[in-house]
Amino acid sequence: MLSILSDDYFMKQALAEARRAYELGEVPVGAVVVSDQHIIARGHNTTEQLRDVTAHAEMVALTAASNYLDAKYLTDCTLFVTLEPCVMCAGALAWSQIGRVVFGAGDDKRGFLRFGKEILHPKTTLEYGILEEECQELLTSFFKARRNR
Amino acid sequence: MLSILSDDYFMKQALAEARRAYELGEVPVGAVVVSDQHIIARGHNTTEQLRDVTAHAEMVALTAASNYLDAKYLTDCTLFVTLEPCVMCAGALAWSQIGRVVFGAGDDKRGFLRFGKEILHPKTTLEYGILEEECQELLTSFFKARRNR
Repeated sequence: MLSILSDDYFMKQALAEARRAYELGEVPVGAVVVSDQHIIARGHNTTEQLRDVTAHAEMVALTAASNYLDAKYLTDCTLFVTLEPCVMCAGALAWSQIGRVVFGAGDDKRGFLRFGKEILHPKTTLEYGILEEECQELLTSFFKARRNR
Repeated sequence: MLSILSDDYFMKQALAEARRAYELGEVPVGAVVVSDQHIIARGHNTTEQLRDVTAHAEMVALTAASNYLDAKYLTDCTLFVTLEPCVMCAGALAWSQIGRVVFGAGDDKRGFLRFGKEILHPKTTLEYGILEEECQELLTSFFKARRNR
């Protein structure tokens, strides 16, 4: 039985956000921020709609989580995101001192791990590969559909 | 005679933004975005006021510049900022494909150059040290005043 509090559960919620981005013609990446087993913030990529390169799923979710908690630091929170964060998002996660980051699919070209885990805060735990195939499949199908337009 | 279109002129404008941050009790960093010799966007650090770690001067100015131009990419623009951008801001500048970045004071601890210029877009020109002393002095005096509180 799937526990509703598992990493899989929260990554599925991030995937639901990614699908919203897909439907809007945005690169399908989604994120949720979890505190004390509750989702306190959600976000999906809106760079095209807002014409704002900073509107990545993680940035939207981070800012929403800070608003919700009325706090700059998210030390007791976990961010679930469907794709490996880019350097910008990893830098933002570092400033937030977030407790844990979990991502689905890796991103060899644009992901922050090219520059090393040191971009994150030293106290942040990192995990990845949760629902990797589903997260990657959504991106692959998006770019395939775009090429065939 | 000082040309009003020099790098010094625009850095002085960024310094004016930094002073606004100072007056609000924020770490004094300021930025302006220049297109075709005109300032199209301004920003100063508002992380405390907004309780949002992503509200750095550069992020605020970048988003405002994109809004002004109604464009995601800032290839013909220059960002002037009083302090070396952090990794988050450098990552955002990379996504924006900004033409040129000019910063005042260096930041050995938090600046993006620890990870290499490669964080920026390959087509972005980088310059630094413009009004370095004034930019640094403002930060030093801010932190000194905070310690003595």
